Amino acid sequence: MARVNENFLKLRAGYLFPEIGRRRRQFQAQNPDARVISLGIGDVTQPLAPAVVEAMKRAVEEMGRTETFRGYDDSGIGYEFLRQAIIENDFKSRGVDLEFDEVFVSDGAKCDTGNMQEVFATANVVAVADPVYPVYVDTNVMAGRTGPGDEKGQYERMVYMPCTAENNFIPDLPGEPVDLIYLCFPNNPTGTVASMQVLKNWVDYARENSAVIFFDAAYEAFICEPEIPHSIYEIDGAKEVAIEFRSFSKTAGFTGVRCAYSVVPKGLKALTEDGRAVEVNPLWARRHCTKFNGVSYVTQRGAEAVYSPEGKKQCRQVIEVYMKNAKLIRESLTGLGYSVYGGVNAPYIWLKTPKGLGSWDFFDLLLEKAHVVGTPGAGFGPAGEGYCRLTAFGKPDEVKEALERLAAIQI
Amino acid sequence: MARVNENFLKLRAGYLFPEIGRRRRQFQAQNPDARVISLGIGDVTQPLAPAVVEAMKRAVEEMGRTETFRGYDDSGIGYEFLRQAIIENDFKSRGVDLEFDEVFVSDGAKCDTGNMQEVFATANVVAVADPVYPVYVDTNVMAGRTGPGDEKGQYERMVYMPCTAENNFIPDLPGEPVDLIYLCFPNNPTGTVASMQVLKNWVDYARENSAVIFFDAAYEAFICEPEIPHSIYEIDGAKEVAIEFRSFSKTAGFTGVRCAYSVVPKGLKALTEDGRAVEVNPLWARRHCTKFNGVSYVTQRGAEAVYSPEGKKQCRQVIEVYMKNAKLIRESLTGLGYSVYGGVNAPYIWLKTPKGLGSWDFFDLLLEKAHVVGTPGAGFGPAGEGYCRLTAFGKPDEVKEALERLAAIQI
Repeated sequence: MARVNENFLKLRAGYLFPEIGRRRRQFQAQNPDARVISLGIGDVTQPLAPAVVEAMKRAVEEMGRTETFRGYDDSGIGYEFLRQAIIENDFKSRGVDLEFDEVFVSDGAKCDTGNMQEVFATANVVAVADPVYPVYVDTNVMAGRTGPGDEKGQYERMVYMPCTAENNFIPDLPGEPVDLIYLCFPNNPTGTVASMQVLKNWVDYARENSAVIFFDAAYEAFICEPEIPHSIYEIDGAKEVAIEFRSFSKTAGFTGVRCAYSVVPKGLKALTEDGRAVEVNPLWARRHCTKFNGVSYVTQRGAEAVYSPEGKKQCRQVIEVYMKNAKLIRESLTGLGYSVYGGVNAPYIWLKTPKGLGSWDFFDLLLEKAHVVGTPGAGFGPAGEGYCRLTAFGKPDEVKEALERLAAIQI
Repeated sequence: MARVNENFLKLRAGYLFPEIGRRRRQFQAQNPDARVISLGIGDVTQPLAPAVVEAMKRAVEEMGRTETFRGYDDSGIGYEFLRQAIIENDFKSRGVDLEFDEVFVSDGAKCDTGNMQEVFATANVVAVADPVYPVYVDTNVMAGRTGPGDEKGQYERMVYMPCTAENNFIPDLPGEPVDLIYLCFPNNPTGTVASMQVLKNWVDYARENSAVIFFDAAYEAFICEPEIPHSIYEIDGAKEVAIEFRSFSKTAGFTGVRCAYSVVPKGLKALTEDGRAVEVNPLWARRHCTKFNGVSYVTQRGAEAVYSPEGKKQCRQVIEVYMKNAKLIRESLTGLGYSVYGGVNAPYIWLKTPKGLGSWDFFDLLLEKAHVVGTPGAGFGPAGEGYCRLTAFGKPDEVKEALERLAAIQI
């Protein structure tokens, strides 16, 4: 008699974005003439860079000719042309040396951050920030690494690290033993970045406690201030304790193209129950090549073009469009008297709701009075209550208009 | 202290294809002038259909313009244009009605057959054919559904169903209770197909025993005989017990493009420990949308074009190229006195080694005497010992030459 994985039954419903959609549709039905603008969306709006488009078209044509057709990516972990470009441009340029088989090309950082836990034991205790990107939590619930959820949507056995204005949205080191730690900088949803010192504290903690850090750097390309590290491997000793996740989704507008990569350094080890240290890199290689079959050749050529001189310039221009949006949002809202965080080295702006309003109450007011959609901070965890996430990924005209509307209303 | 998933340590090394590569390289080093031809390769060699190339190029161009740019596939399970085409062409045309949200577009049948077990309990007993596609086994080992492996490479708690000439390569119904059953027809590696009656026996068995069938139909497009079912859902009652996997990899040469889909019917249920029946479809939807982020828009447009009138015709022509190879291999080898199976409704030919030779001994002889590479049947499981897999995916000229070489040697 086939049995289900009952860990799935512990999951809260995917509540946040469906509920936003429901409230938005209901408002639109009652106000058919209102032109709603979303500043809640986590998806990009600018098209692919011309260099990427050209590279992908060439690759499609290659696939149409016998002489240049390509089948499986036999390595399973990405063509060498792409891994080479990644290692040179994203790491060597910042003083980090990586080996070829430490980089695993994949179809998304969501997939990678979701799948990486599979090579670790169910017994590990997991620590996440609160607020948090829900994928980190849900995939561990599915894997049986937690108990049931409570009414706040938090799960037994998972360690939550609150991030609020009081600790500058940087989680404190855990007071209890934890084994796997998810960190995301620049942070989704708070837009916070981690300094060298903050990352060093975490690397030291992980080394002292034989913990492993899952470092999600999907928004690394938005870092503007030179002193902020882009990779956790800029910290000495991090290679022995940290796995890093990167993505072309926001860097190069690949949300609909699908390409990302993870770095699993060979020095990284974890223990067996009887205390033997085992390298994680070959376990991930085995997982990657058994449950995944490589990224589209066309996509990999597109990703390679992100690193060409034109590709770099064009992608940088798109990021500047978004960062201008971020600046405008930050400055306009500050001018209106809001407390605003993030948006300097990140495409996310984290807003303290005025007058102690709850996240969802503020969401409703924004929608009703300004016809603007944000994302309620409470949707990312209890410590997000009283905050709202706005994103810089909108079209500039719409962002501008949304801000003018916000300036015109009384909350 | 982070601990590894020790189930990974139970896995045999990915032995088969690396070992083939090693022997081939060694031979080539010793015989630098020999032109080795591979009939062992499981990858396609013909280019993408022109209709697919055109559709993908158009999609890339759309991604380069603001007005037509697409980000995330919000459904997470595939654009409606593709799911519509799948339902109409692959199922409705054969009398099978599916709903929109029973079809999940993904980046590969390897991924889907590897991931689907995650929504089922670790306690389930898994049955696989012997010989078998290793992904079915390895992903269950990783998930902790087996004990350790033995010297033959078989794992405790997994039920192996031998398939040999004696049972026409159709597994007998299990004599012991099993919960999850992997079936693959047309079969990799044996090239066997299942009749309506064979599939009905399995569906009846699953219904009587509340088991779930994972039906891998990745090679469905190679079925030529009209009485052979293409989908397990052609059997009454199958929707309540079977999940079906399909792929564009071999159907349309997408091994380097990456697109597939799985069907999880809403009627399919499995049990909780306390005996409640739970629908599997929403669990898979949750898994798919949490650990995966959709298939490239460009790829999905390419897959849609497979179903256009020109696309269908062009893909059919490519399949006919491969099936001509299959016919030539089958007939030539039969003429040479070999016992040959498969290759009629499948791109795989399963060859009994002559004179009781072991699989690897035959492999070595083929390589040394004819400079031809096959795949040793023993690599797919103990019941494959004494067999060799040849594939029809080679270039026609090379297949012809390989067969001429085989005719000229004495084994």
